[in-house]
Amino acid sequence: MRIGVIGAGSVGGTLGRRWAERGHEVLFGVRDATDEKVRRLLSASGGRARAGSVEQAGAFGEVVVLATPWSAAESALRAAGDLRGKTLLDCTNPLKSDLSGLTIGHTTSGGEQVAAWARGAKVVKIFNTTGFDNMADPEYKEGPATMFYCGDDSSAKTTAATLAADLGFDPVDAGPLVQARLLEPYALLWITLAYKQGLGRSFAFRLVRR
Amino acid sequence: MRIGVIGAGSVGGTLGRRWAERGHEVLFGVRDATDEKVRRLLSASGGRARAGSVEQAGAFGEVVVLATPWSAAESALRAAGDLRGKTLLDCTNPLKSDLSGLTIGHTTSGGEQVAAWARGAKVVKIFNTTGFDNMADPEYKEGPATMFYCGDDSSAKTTAATLAADLGFDPVDAGPLVQARLLEPYALLWITLAYKQGLGRSFAFRLVRR
Repeated sequence: MRIGVIGAGSVGGTLGRRWAERGHEVLFGVRDATDEKVRRLLSASGGRARAGSVEQAGAFGEVVVLATPWSAAESALRAAGDLRGKTLLDCTNPLKSDLSGLTIGHTTSGGEQVAAWARGAKVVKIFNTTGFDNMADPEYKEGPATMFYCGDDSSAKTTAATLAADLGFDPVDAGPLVQARLLEPYALLWITLAYKQGLGRSFAFRLVRR
Repeated sequence: MRIGVIGAGSVGGTLGRRWAERGHEVLFGVRDATDEKVRRLLSASGGRARAGSVEQAGAFGEVVVLATPWSAAESALRAAGDLRGKTLLDCTNPLKSDLSGLTIGHTTSGGEQVAAWARGAKVVKIFNTTGFDNMADPEYKEGPATMFYCGDDSSAKTTAATLAADLGFDPVDAGPLVQARLLEPYALLWITLAYKQGLGRSFAFRLVRR
């Protein structure tokens, strides 16, 4: 397949290099194709990938891969030219620079609302990210399902984690309560996979470590 | 531990039953403690759980568990009384009734914005939910890392899934492009675990099946 990769950083570089190794034709679209980092990347790709302008990458690819920082995404797409009818793989995330949230679309969460309603309570968001079958039996062949939790009170979080471990879950601390903005969409992902994508309820998410 | 579980549906019922089995003292807070479903739940809990009003559950628990539908959460918390200083486990999700999204806090996504910028392109959101180390090597002891993707064009999605499988990922279709509202927070969860919660980049999410 002819793949135009816009951006040659960690993500674009790794994807393009590996696709080139697998026999795909890869053209990296970058600002400066003579840049030392780009040359090292081409060399690491065993000469099977090339570099050119963002416009060339957009024109070259049957598949175009957007792998820029979010702040550069709009201008990169403009530079890429007409992409009508092409497959565009969007690998970006609209991250705030301090990773405190997403810059668009995400403004609050149910967990924060609950904390506002239950004034003074030590709210922990937990047991919202999987189905009740998994609560009844969190053990999978490969190990226990992961249970993420978040909150602002560390002793309450320890209690919550203990109660999750009591049921057989692998509890993982996801940070402060504002992270409910992540755990609620995560829950909806599980729910839509179960009920809309046809997976049913017999699956779980597991955090695996090397 | 003394646990007050508000709501005795699938989630609250399962959690309370299992905690009771593990030796915790459980009081379900429900609207009608004589309801047939509640009686069956208490019987399934081997007599180790009791049922009472929401107010009683709120007063009883060192830990209070909110396991109502989102639409009932505010009134349930009011009925639960003063929860100051208590640990409150929030298991709710502010779901739209058709599961098309979250009712608060989530209004758009980078993926949808990219589709608006790249008019006519067949946008697939993919390769945004994990780190480049995992793109270089998605294989874990337990099996390959999962790669979620979403988009509105099925042929473009097939291409994207093939390219993910080419790298060794287990590709999982997460639905239409609007699901980028879930996959971007999912990405930020990975990122914050890696960089703020101290996990580093040597972990991945895996969807496991029974």
